[in-house]
Parts: sequence; structure tokens; C-alpha cells
Amino acid sequence: MFRDLILKNRSCRRFYQDEAVTSELLKEIVDLARVGPSASNLQPLKYAISYTPEINNKIFAQLSWAGYLTNWSGPEEGERPAAYVIILGDTSITRSFNCDHGIAAQSILLAACENDLNGCIIGSINRDAIHSQLNIPTTYKTLLVIALGKQREKIVLEAIKDDGDIRYWRDKNDVHHVPKRSLDDVIIEI
Amino acid sequence: MFRDLILKNRSCRRFYQDEAVTSELLKEIVDLARVGPSASNLQPLKYAISYTPEINNKIFAQLSWAGYLTNWSGPEEGERPAAYVIILGDTSITRSFNCDHGIAAQSILLAACENDLNGCIIGSINRDAIHSQLNIPTTYKTLLVIALGKQREKIVLEAIKDDGDIRYWRDKNDVHHVPKRSLDDVIIEI
Repeated sequence: MFRDLILKNRSCRRFYQDEAVTSELLKEIVDLARVGPSASNLQPLKYAISYTPEINNKIFAQLSWAGYLTNWSGPEEGERPAAYVIILGDTSITRSFNCDHGIAAQSILLAACENDLNGCIIGSINRDAIHSQLNIPTTYKTLLVIALGKQREKIVLEAIKDDGDIRYWRDKNDVHHVPKRSLDDVIIEI
Repeated sequence: MFRDLILKNRSCRRFYQDEAVTSELLKEIVDLARVGPSASNLQPLKYAISYTPEINNKIFAQLSWAGYLTNWSGPEEGERPAAYVIILGDTSITRSFNCDHGIAAQSILLAACENDLNGCIIGSINRDAIHSQLNIPTTYKTLLVIALGKQREKIVLEAIKDDGDIRYWRDKNDVHHVPKRSLDDVIIEI
């Protein structure tokens, strides 16, 4: 059921780092993003995959994690992502990527979930450094980094409280809580 | 299998208009978009659903269809969408929606597909008119319209030819062809 996949797809930030992800699986996952909807069918997205400790380390060093967890600077060695997909925008095709990268990111995360991987879309990226570290041509713009791996944290959805606070938080048992708006709050009558 | 769902999810522009979509199903679908990833978990998206001929007509009148099909101005009466989800950005929460609407649109389309509906993400919208026609408060920005219904056209994916043309086209049997870039063309080595 698609509902199960959607619910399983929780943004995850701690992983079993030693559980490797193969390049074959990453390519299968990207292959599903490849055939998704694209504004005017331009298909301006490109994908760089990483699954080796060496390149993973270079990518990890350029990411910022979980802005609301002010006492946590990101996953420790041993619980870092085992793989990444970098979504690039090819400016030789267009400079306007609309929300194509959102569509692709969701396809990638859901495809990963079906393979018992979870992930996190990261937009807070030191883009200049990632380009130079990985020798990515300047024709490509880094849009998003998707961190992937086998989930090593418990994540629960909860209703937003009366104070309207949407910040995710961790409890004393290290469970990650994510407040979500209710269906009634997001549907507008017309 | 998620792959089957991804492949079934083809952007569709002709529908069995008389095959109604219930508000209950539309709400179930939106409920899955609701719990998807959102930048900084802000959840700034709202959703307006339409499933009656009266409101469907108002929405249809404000959409432009299939830019590459220059001899076709959109679906005829009888083959128009049976339902819509309008994805709105709530500017009282943020003015920066990142690619949240892309993530949500893909969740909606895939959830629809699982229920044997297909759809099309439409970004070419007369936004001022849709707001006034539907009395949508100016706090909300119309980001995307997703047309939905039971698919009434045959759609095939094909490889892009040597000329690099990505424009979809219809053959003499009215089959809709969609050229997609190959996996090798979208993966960048790092």
C-alpha cells in the first residue's frame, strides 16, 4: 500500500553507516526519478551518486543538519549516511527548475523506502565547497542533497499542539518527534 | 511494487470526465501529501479540492494545456478532468516554499495512481482569475493545479532521439509519446 510507504518515509538523520548501499541500487532509484513528471518535460535534472566512504565524507563535510536541534550538530561517525544522491540542475538546459527537484526527491525517498532505506532531503549545503571538492562542473547547480542509509533512530509523527510549534524535537529517550498540521488545517474550502 | 506505480503515473490530459472522484478520496490523497517532507517542517502548503462540475468548470477555464501540442487547446467537454487539487502556499507561514509543492504533487499523483486515477501537474494558470473565481484569500499563493481523473488516452515513454528533442507528441493513432533522457544521460560521475 502506498500509504504505508508514505508513512515509512520519515526524514531520518541517523543511520547504520556500515550498512553499505550499492551503486546498482542507487542507479535503480535514480532511474525511477528519471521518468517522473518534469515541467515542459525539459528534464533538466542530473544526479550524482555517492556510496564510498571517501566521497561520502567529502559530501558530509558540506552539509548542515536539523536546524531545530540546536544541541546536535549532526550524525556522529558510525551513524552517518551510507550514501547520497545529489540532485543537480543542468543550466545548459534551463535556469528555471520549478519544483522538478521536489518531485524527484520524493520519488527517490519513496524508492529508497521500498528498499528499507530512509533518507533526508538537505537544502542547507555549502554549495561552492561541494562543487570544488567533487569537481562538479559549474554548468550544474546543486539543488538538493539526499542522504540515505538504514534508519538508526525512532521517529514519530504527532499533532501540532495549541501553540502551533512545528519544530521537531527529541525526547529523553532520543525519539525524534515531528509535529504535523492536521488534515482539517491544510484543506481550504472553495 | 513502487516501480509499477511510478511507471503508471504518466501525465494525462484526457479523462473519462463522467467518472466522478469523491471528496473522501481526494481528502485521503491530500492526507498523504500532508505528512510528506517539508523544508524546516514548516508545512506551508494548503490544498483546495474540487470534484463538482460547477467548480471544475471554473478551474478548467483558467488553465493552459500541453504547450507542445500546438494544434490542441486542451481536453474537450467529456474528456476533461473529473477533479482537481489546487496546491496553495500560505504566505502567512512563509514566502519561500522551496520545492515543497513538488514533493506534495508527486505524493498526490502517486496516491491517485494507486486508486486508478491519473493526473497532470499544471503550472500554466491564470492565477488572478482562479483566485477571484474561487474566492481564495490573497494570503494563499496558487502554486500548482493538479488535474485528476480516469485516464482516457494511451501514453508511451520513449528514448530521446539523436536530435535531443524532448517535446511530447501525438501520433496518428492519437497515442501520446513522451521522450525521456536515458539513465546514462542523467547520471554525472563524481
